[in-house]
Amino acid sequence: RPLGVLLALGDPDLESGLVNGILHGAIACCASAGTALVGGDTDRHQELTLVSSAVGEAARPVRRRGARVGDAVCVTGDLGRTQAALRLYAAGDLAAADELFAFSPRVEWGLRLAPYATSMIDISDGLAHSLHLLAQESGVGFEIDEPLLPVSTAATQGIPRAELREAILFGGEDYELLFTVPKEAIAAIPPTVRFSVIGNVTEAGVRANGHALPDTGYEH
Amino acid sequence: RPLGVLLALGDPDLESGLVNGILHGAIACCASAGTALVGGDTDRHQELTLVSSAVGEAARPVRRRGARVGDAVCVTGDLGRTQAALRLYAAGDLAAADELFAFSPRVEWGLRLAPYATSMIDISDGLAHSLHLLAQESGVGFEIDEPLLPVSTAATQGIPRAELREAILFGGEDYELLFTVPKEAIAAIPPTVRFSVIGNVTEAGVRANGHALPDTGYEH
Repeated sequence: RPLGVLLALGDPDLESGLVNGILHGAIACCASAGTALVGGDTDRHQELTLVSSAVGEAARPVRRRGARVGDAVCVTGDLGRTQAALRLYAAGDLAAADELFAFSPRVEWGLRLAPYATSMIDISDGLAHSLHLLAQESGVGFEIDEPLLPVSTAATQGIPRAELREAILFGGEDYELLFTVPKEAIAAIPPTVRFSVIGNVTEAGVRANGHALPDTGYEH
Repeated sequence: RPLGVLLALGDPDLESGLVNGILHGAIACCASAGTALVGGDTDRHQELTLVSSAVGEAARPVRRRGARVGDAVCVTGDLGRTQAALRLYAAGDLAAADELFAFSPRVEWGLRLAPYATSMIDISDGLAHSLHLLAQESGVGFEIDEPLLPVSTAATQGIPRAELREAILFGGEDYELLFTVPKEAIAAIPPTVRFSVIGNVTEAGVRANGHALPDTGYEH
């Protein structure tokens, strides 16, 4: 259950429209996730700097460790939205890009998954790196079936076919939830949570389509 | 009651001894305040950037608003330590400066004051600006008696007499607690809390020795 969000904001010009826009966006985003911006700090800084901390409480927190051999590996929503948005920004289509960026944090889905998931992490650092983190913390491996990855329409339309796999596996900032769940519990997950089964928990090693998946992260 | 501290750390060189030193200092400081560094983030950044968030819970939080006309104005510990330390750093006396900087956060004192204080703030932005913030939020004024200000030995020894008043009133980062308390409650404050009465809550205006005190803040 979210309790509140803190945002620290640094910029050379704190009076700028940019800072104001970010602040209004943050307030709206918190509201969309059923919480509020409750505090933080502003300071002059050489480069635009944003640090947010979200505080919540949980009776039974789902951690990065906890995945068990035989569990299903799943991801919420679909992938590549942010990488598609970055290309739209680069191409100057700001309206379409903004729309892809304005998604709601997966707080509600996370809460609904919590009773069933054995481990969970967001994929802001990219799917591949997040898989490695979860595997390492849980002391297990993953076998991912690439054709099962839920590719967003934005990604199939906006990213050249030759670059799509790279964007989906190694692109970051999608903020979907990667989680593991015992196979017998999958049917119990509320249908309002949109997710895909993308593989299995194995003894060791992170593999995709039978090949080792490099632990390549996404630099924010 | 402190629950935990989050620290986000950005620097051009995350592998440097500087970053490691800061991290170890933060861990020790949290321990000294009866809490722990429970999370955060690291990232490459053009300039050294530190953002910390401390999370706690309180049955009856003491806010910035709440000061009442007739309350006593008080401050914990003594003043000018940080400004004296900065002069020692500038003069190259790192050992002495480090010692002045290595003080424990006033968490324990804050907890002991909470049942009695009507308003409270830390003075990291400087005493003058903190007085203005507290007065504004509480809708009152303050009359400060300058001879009552608890000047630290470090400040009287390390800051030229002509610059001492400026350092005490407008220098920042001392992280002592400025609070108001009904006069009849002063005797009930546990003697383990070291504090000084420095003035009175009035109807309006922030004054020191009968003169308006400028709202000059301290830029971190």
